[in-house]
Amino acid sequence: MNIEMINAAATRLSNLVRCTPLLNSPVIDKLAGRRVWIKPECLQITGSFKFRGAWSAISALNPEVRTRGVVTFSSGNHAQGVALAAQTFGAPAIIVMPTDAPQTKIMSTKKMGAEVILSDRDRKHQEQIVAELSSERGLTIIKPFDNAEVIAGQGTIGLEIAEQARKCGVTEAEVLICCGGGGLLSGIALALEAKAPRLQCRSVEPQGFNDMARSIALGDYVRNMYTSGSICDAILTPEPGKLTFPIIRRLCGSGLVVSDEDVLRAMVIAFEQLKLVVEPGGAVALAAILFQISEIKGDDVICIISGGNVDAGVFVNALTQFGMEND
Amino acid sequence: MNIEMINAAATRLSNLVRCTPLLNSPVIDKLAGRRVWIKPECLQITGSFKFRGAWSAISALNPEVRTRGVVTFSSGNHAQGVALAAQTFGAPAIIVMPTDAPQTKIMSTKKMGAEVILSDRDRKHQEQIVAELSSERGLTIIKPFDNAEVIAGQGTIGLEIAEQARKCGVTEAEVLICCGGGGLLSGIALALEAKAPRLQCRSVEPQGFNDMARSIALGDYVRNMYTSGSICDAILTPEPGKLTFPIIRRLCGSGLVVSDEDVLRAMVIAFEQLKLVVEPGGAVALAAILFQISEIKGDDVICIISGGNVDAGVFVNALTQFGMEND
Repeated sequence: MNIEMINAAATRLSNLVRCTPLLNSPVIDKLAGRRVWIKPECLQITGSFKFRGAWSAISALNPEVRTRGVVTFSSGNHAQGVALAAQTFGAPAIIVMPTDAPQTKIMSTKKMGAEVILSDRDRKHQEQIVAELSSERGLTIIKPFDNAEVIAGQGTIGLEIAEQARKCGVTEAEVLICCGGGGLLSGIALALEAKAPRLQCRSVEPQGFNDMARSIALGDYVRNMYTSGSICDAILTPEPGKLTFPIIRRLCGSGLVVSDEDVLRAMVIAFEQLKLVVEPGGAVALAAILFQISEIKGDDVICIISGGNVDAGVFVNALTQFGMEND
Repeated sequence: MNIEMINAAATRLSNLVRCTPLLNSPVIDKLAGRRVWIKPECLQITGSFKFRGAWSAISALNPEVRTRGVVTFSSGNHAQGVALAAQTFGAPAIIVMPTDAPQTKIMSTKKMGAEVILSDRDRKHQEQIVAELSSERGLTIIKPFDNAEVIAGQGTIGLEIAEQARKCGVTEAEVLICCGGGGLLSGIALALEAKAPRLQCRSVEPQGFNDMARSIALGDYVRNMYTSGSICDAILTPEPGKLTFPIIRRLCGSGLVVSDEDVLRAMVIAFEQLKLVVEPGGAVALAAILFQISEIKGDDVICIISGGNVDAGVFVNALTQFGMEND
């Protein structure tokens, strides 16, 4: 893994992904007590950053191999990225998704032409189904984070942040990143190491699923006790990735943790102040900026909003609980 | 009014407004039966395009005059634009707003330091209050659309569209624009006349408030029968503007009209497919693209989403009525 792979992924992705803007909001600055710069990957094609990594990996395959098709497991955002990339190449895609994935993610993945197989959230079980499908049907496995080309694709966000932060006059800041297996975090950390080394990445996870924060603190792999039980469906991975964690351990600061309730509050603030639809797992970094103020250093902070694929019912609940104060 | 004024406004606005992206969505293309290009001004500072015109007008004032302060009437988006621009210049601002304006607009205008005076929606009454405040306190009136510098500021969106459409390979298309008094429509139409004359602007209004469509059809001013009764609070103006209508009559195609129910549906589709929070008045052009398909010509269509300042309760109602089908 190196910056050249990220640059190459950026070339393959040019004209296909949106260079999402770097937004700010005076009201959020005030709430956070510092200048906040927000990279809204909910505005990315497929509603999350995951198309970057999926396209990067699938476009890097040998065309003959690619034509046979791809298979993966995903809670729904990587699913849509892989489905759209495969569909664009005319290749079949099978995605193993958890039964409790948001309906919007399951529907959208199917609409993009992928075959969806529902399974429980047990990662070993999911990996077994994927391995069997791969060997039976000759499909290439595109893992959601433990794949070098996927990490390189997510790293293209780091290239954009380095350039955009420079234009905004931000040379030193923490960069808070929603974290499941660490594909987004490790990719951006690698890109910033090369392009803006004074921007330091930190993971943000939901309470009870802070395997990355604990693994960073220990310097070794720690597993979560549970596989479900947070609203942040996109980032409930069991443990850090084999490819991602060595990069994260080397480059990232300590991890942050937020409550589901603060995640809902952050979603409402994004609704009110940014006019963005953010899914729970995509709001953890913003939640940390708003509600873990003393855990963050510096006058500027950057964060990723990683996705916006949320069921209407969940969004209504967030607005009903925390959004009616002004009504 | 001419393109030089719009270019000058763009210079005064540079580094202050966001150049909002031109988004597209494969699902929306499919629903609309053509390629749809969406300019999301809900992502603009203050949550609507109105900051462009307000800053353009207030920055063009003689500094001595500006220091005494400004006054205007507005249902809430122009209010926020004027409030923020005045606050930035350290000038006082008084805004007359209707009592039934969304709470989020009233709160936000006050937070930006403006004094808010609530009144009914009767335009004559509002203009009278504004005129009295102006003469009593020496405040300059910044009308929401019948002001040449306001129109020039809104026209900067047209400059961006001309450039962005060219990059997307779109040389001929209708440009559907949410329309109240016509400041946005006339400004963009003037800019496109100069920069991309094969992009033709058309107004979109809510049912019962289609004074612009009827005025265009008649070639003379027609008034609405009512002053309230649609959810599209931002664009319920009584009749076309004195400055805007001559420009619109000369440059724009026939006007489109949409129902409040289709507006709510369009808000839900923007939530699902674009991850954008859109207010009712900001969604009328998208609603026309989705639900007035046979009224539109060509393979490509461009539309403005003009704002996202919607109360949580209204958004919840939209999602509850039309967004739960997949849940």
